[in-house]
Amino acid sequence: MSLIGLDVGGTSMKAALTQDSEILLTESWPTDREDPVGGILDFAAHLASRATALGSPAQAAGIALPGIVDESTGTAVRSANLGWRDVPMLELARERLAIPVAIGHDVRTGGLAESVLGAGRDAGDFVFMAIGTGIAAALILNGTPYPGTVGWSGEIGHVVVRPDGAACGCGNRGCLERYASAAAISRRYGASVPAEEVIARARRNDEKAAEVWSEALDCLADGLAATTLLLDPSLIVIGGGLAKAGESLLNPLTTRLADRLTFRDAPRLTLSELDDQAAVRGATILAARLLKPSPPKK
Amino acid sequence: MSLIGLDVGGTSMKAALTQDSEILLTESWPTDREDPVGGILDFAAHLASRATALGSPAQAAGIALPGIVDESTGTAVRSANLGWRDVPMLELARERLAIPVAIGHDVRTGGLAESVLGAGRDAGDFVFMAIGTGIAAALILNGTPYPGTVGWSGEIGHVVVRPDGAACGCGNRGCLERYASAAAISRRYGASVPAEEVIARARRNDEKAAEVWSEALDCLADGLAATTLLLDPSLIVIGGGLAKAGESLLNPLTTRLADRLTFRDAPRLTLSELDDQAAVRGATILAARLLKPSPPKK
Repeated sequence: MSLIGLDVGGTSMKAALTQDSEILLTESWPTDREDPVGGILDFAAHLASRATALGSPAQAAGIALPGIVDESTGTAVRSANLGWRDVPMLELARERLAIPVAIGHDVRTGGLAESVLGAGRDAGDFVFMAIGTGIAAALILNGTPYPGTVGWSGEIGHVVVRPDGAACGCGNRGCLERYASAAAISRRYGASVPAEEVIARARRNDEKAAEVWSEALDCLADGLAATTLLLDPSLIVIGGGLAKAGESLLNPLTTRLADRLTFRDAPRLTLSELDDQAAVRGATILAARLLKPSPPKK
Repeated sequence: MSLIGLDVGGTSMKAALTQDSEILLTESWPTDREDPVGGILDFAAHLASRATALGSPAQAAGIALPGIVDESTGTAVRSANLGWRDVPMLELARERLAIPVAIGHDVRTGGLAESVLGAGRDAGDFVFMAIGTGIAAALILNGTPYPGTVGWSGEIGHVVVRPDGAACGCGNRGCLERYASAAAISRRYGASVPAEEVIARARRNDEKAAEVWSEALDCLADGLAATTLLLDPSLIVIGGGLAKAGESLLNPLTTRLADRLTFRDAPRLTLSELDDQAAVRGATILAARLLKPSPPKK
């Protein structure tokens, strides 16, 4: 008997089939931008039939979704990127698969996986921040991602770090993700250079790259300082595509965060251990918990 | 049998003796700035003997303290204002009073009272923000103030809202409380005019007052927008001395907060119902819970 874990992104969907914590197979499909909901259901059904073919029928599925997600009702409330509104994803998937299904928010699900299996496994309450096309965070309190009261906690990407700064797609100005997401770093440097390469050029003393990267680091430190002052986490785990920058990200960010916290110690900063598999692994954990609820981590 | 609730402030200490939720007496003493700990213990002992004299001996005491407080060990970790460090307040008070004692953080204790008895009693998770000499917040999650991992959550007063702005006592620049605390409003207007009068003058179109007050409102809205984006509370309750400004504070702040939250609704904003009694009432609740632990509010 196996579990399906599925993570829906803006351009691709990733999935894993797991049996007794062993991964039987992983698979990736492009996201169907015309009919993303249909694409998710088709992919899930395909995984279920693969599981049966492998002699290990799927017992439960977890699906991590972007945007605003109401985990309690299993509703995909909204995704600007994928264009859906109020999709009863839990119901649709349960109907299609005929097994128990859990719906999660992608970043919170990733944070859950880091909490159980990854960089946060020995931590108390911590913050998982994913830096990719956008920036969002999951607040892990008592071993569980805290969704907020309407499922919209952790929107650190839209915290204003530069008042009256650059216009953001959200309608506001100076939002963190306008300066420090992988997309923003690439855009601010120009010439379609990906963020990873901008960071590499900054190390090689390309002046423009160094300026863009330093501003991104300052903005990230500003956002994390505000988060620390409000929440007092024990640890901050950084994931998402930009975490691939490794020490080039972690070292200067650690210094700049400490500089901003004048009257208290900074929480430890570390990199995600599950990388781009965090949300898939978290979705699998959600599926497993449907079958055997586990007590909150102490 | 009665309960002692005691709230220690920078200039005065407030207390109430309560029996079956009825207040038997309230009393206020000046804070002993030479020996604040001794002053607290003397005041508490005095209250206990008043209780006995009234024929209702004190059964338990709750003491709300400023600064950094570790509620789990009952330690007054630090108060810059009162100059103490690592005072084992729980032990000292228990020794002096010979009854059960609970130690709380003043703002979190005020938030607890608003949650049980005040403006937050019908709310889910909410934020209580006290604006006085400084600015701090209590995060009420599942009916309980969330202290953070080292007892230092809710430090919204030091969230930077004006990068490279005015120097703050904390060593950083542009902190919220440098613009929007009652002390800052008074200082920025000048001529020793108290904040309440600055706000009154702003209403009467005193240009300088209007400018100072508008900047304070903008900064408060910036801080609350960041808090909302990170935590997604259902409600924000505003207490502390500045809450006396009432609608002059609430109305423009509600508008400015909504303006900043471009892609989501703003949580409702309301005023504290317990005013300057919030922390005393909360301290009494802490004392009561020592005798009869109550389940977390749903």
